[in-house]
Amino acid sequence: ADVKKIAVIAGDGIGPEVVAEAIKVMKKTEDVFGYRFEFEHGLFGGIAIDEKGTPLPEDTLAICKKADAVLLGAVGGPKWDNNPKELRPETGLLGIRKALGLFSNIRPANVFDCLKEASTLKPEVLEGTDLIVVRELTGGIYFGEKFRREGANGEEAVDTCVYNVTEVERIVRQAFEIARTRRKKLASVDKANVLETSRLWRETVNRIAPDYPDVELEHVLVDNCAMQLLRRPSSFDVIVTENMFGDILSDEAAMLTGSIGMLSSASLGEGAFGLYEPVHGSAPDIAGQGIANPIATILSVALMYRLTFGYHDAAEAIERAVKEVLDAGHRTGDIAVDKSKAIGTTAMGELIVNAI
Amino acid sequence: ADVKKIAVIAGDGIGPEVVAEAIKVMKKTEDVFGYRFEFEHGLFGGIAIDEKGTPLPEDTLAICKKADAVLLGAVGGPKWDNNPKELRPETGLLGIRKALGLFSNIRPANVFDCLKEASTLKPEVLEGTDLIVVRELTGGIYFGEKFRREGANGEEAVDTCVYNVTEVERIVRQAFEIARTRRKKLASVDKANVLETSRLWRETVNRIAPDYPDVELEHVLVDNCAMQLLRRPSSFDVIVTENMFGDILSDEAAMLTGSIGMLSSASLGEGAFGLYEPVHGSAPDIAGQGIANPIATILSVALMYRLTFGYHDAAEAIERAVKEVLDAGHRTGDIAVDKSKAIGTTAMGELIVNAI
Ligand SMILES: CC(C)[C@H](C(=O)O)[C@@H](O)C(=O)O
Ligand SMILES: CC(C)[C@H](C(=O)O)[C@@H](O)C(=O)O
Repeated sequence: ADVKKIAVIAGDGIGPEVVAEAIKVMKKTEDVFGYRFEFEHGLFGGIAIDEKGTPLPEDTLAICKKADAVLLGAVGGPKWDNNPKELRPETGLLGIRKALGLFSNIRPANVFDCLKEASTLKPEVLEGTDLIVVRELTGGIYFGEKFRREGANGEEAVDTCVYNVTEVERIVRQAFEIARTRRKKLASVDKANVLETSRLWRETVNRIAPDYPDVELEHVLVDNCAMQLLRRPSSFDVIVTENMFGDILSDEAAMLTGSIGMLSSASLGEGAFGLYEPVHGSAPDIAGQGIANPIATILSVALMYRLTFGYHDAAEAIERAVKEVLDAGHRTGDIAVDKSKAIGTTAMGELIVNAI
Repeated sequence: ADVKKIAVIAGDGIGPEVVAEAIKVMKKTEDVFGYRFEFEHGLFGGIAIDEKGTPLPEDTLAICKKADAVLLGAVGGPKWDNNPKELRPETGLLGIRKALGLFSNIRPANVFDCLKEASTLKPEVLEGTDLIVVRELTGGIYFGEKFRREGANGEEAVDTCVYNVTEVERIVRQAFEIARTRRKKLASVDKANVLETSRLWRETVNRIAPDYPDVELEHVLVDNCAMQLLRRPSSFDVIVTENMFGDILSDEAAMLTGSIGMLSSASLGEGAFGLYEPVHGSAPDIAGQGIANPIATILSVALMYRLTFGYHDAAEAIERAVKEVLDAGHRTGDIAVDKSKAIGTTAMGELIVNAI
């Protein structure tokens, strides 16, 4: 098979530990399915700040640009929290999204059987919840002009939220396409009763909607969406929204499933290229102890196989292996009911590798 | 006693029905406690659009400006949803906030015993939840410059988020003061890892914090707050945040209590003047049927008595009366377990009036 180049940026905290297990899984799929990967590692985030003086070194970016897909662990930690902006891990994250043109963040929020009880929502409310938040990732208030100035009432700060019709159209079309492959329902979230960018958003959605007559569309105001996610999570299929709202709602949606330690995500641009990472963070409090749960990262590989490479057989094998291992009762500490029986990161990785 | 002027803007949908009961309650407190109110009614929202061609007529604003407090029902409905901006009820809402200088929105989110089961959260998670969201209400992206322009990639929309240090300081000080009267915990919510306005916000909070050494302060990123509200709602006491984040988080917090039909809110400016309204909307689907729950509006009167007039005895009497009536098992349809036994709006109002 032709060799796929994978840029690996393990990052900080538990990043390197969980990424190591995901790579073992990828290697196993080489043996079993005959796929071929070439891994190139780059520094990113806090560790890159420490070693190279910048969260996103040029050569890391070069490695990503040459690659067919990027596997990311996690970035950040208290060590860098009070750094100036240019020396913060998040700045690297925003930089890499922009530099790689990753305008779409795909965040599935579904419930794992073994974690049903972990949610703070009642099981009967959660029942059947399986949604995807499609978040615009390179526009809006994240990337608009930002500055300080002196005003009549003292120092003033300004952020600018900008969207053009092309940016809105490409993310909305992608969301419609995804909805088509699922339960055919799309909720477009905006604040059209207040924001001009939201009015452009809604107009664009309405203009495009006739191209997808098979998809049922609803417009939901962002404040109402924050409520409805709690009220009727299972009624959502695909949610599409702008960058800032997507940041908030995708985290709310992830948390309500109770499965945040198991959720994967994809950031996509034009074409098949994508960056894949677990939804959970770098968890500095448990880093280096070998107890982190590698499943979200391993499932991010499955997502990569599906969305970037079309390796559906291997993706399914990974997902099945994860389910098998969980069904057999194996748990890392974060998801174990009886913590004394919890297994470590490599043990969990190995079990999944063996189940493929 | 000296006569307090109350501007009454009943608005749309169930607004007039619930406000009528709240006024009966106020009249009862005149009899019992000797307070004196003078009511002046103004058109506002959809009904004002229909009758006067604008959601916030000049004379309504004049009535509010002369008043000591405003009692608002609810505004909006599908009838006006597709109107141009100047002819939408929400435009009236934004206009009145700005015109009256109501920079602070106080949104208590607490759980009513009789509604514990109505929440989609597990009772053990909800246990003890009693928080207040203090939302900045006249700044940020709501009121910054908004416009369209032609860009290189087609039509572009722009919203501007602006905060000056004076605006941030006054709302944050108010939140610290409120925290002082409660469990002495303040969570300041921002997105300081991305937004310049949030960095100004956080700097200002940190500069002011030493004046309130008795209040425990934490900074929470908005995406994390959306998660923590679900994870550990009872750990929050006072949450202070900017306008857009406050819109989303206060609705999320209200919904998780399960008591959204019972929650009141206050919008305050400098001095004692305030606008009081239920958190629920105009519920056009049940308007005119006499079945709406008047309790949130009645409790908004109690909030008015406390925050604007310092009538703590009457406030307590109202709150006690509501509790008594609920404890006796009386329910409107929205909160009834056995819907066949539900009582109507005026019956509920009367029971509460009689219990004062
Ligand atoms: C770290 C931060 C800049 C980032 C964001 O807000 O996009 C994170 O919250 C995320 O969602 O990936
Ligand atoms: C109707 C709308 C403009 C308003 C807001 O966003 O402020 C509402 O959601 C609220 O919270 O009072």
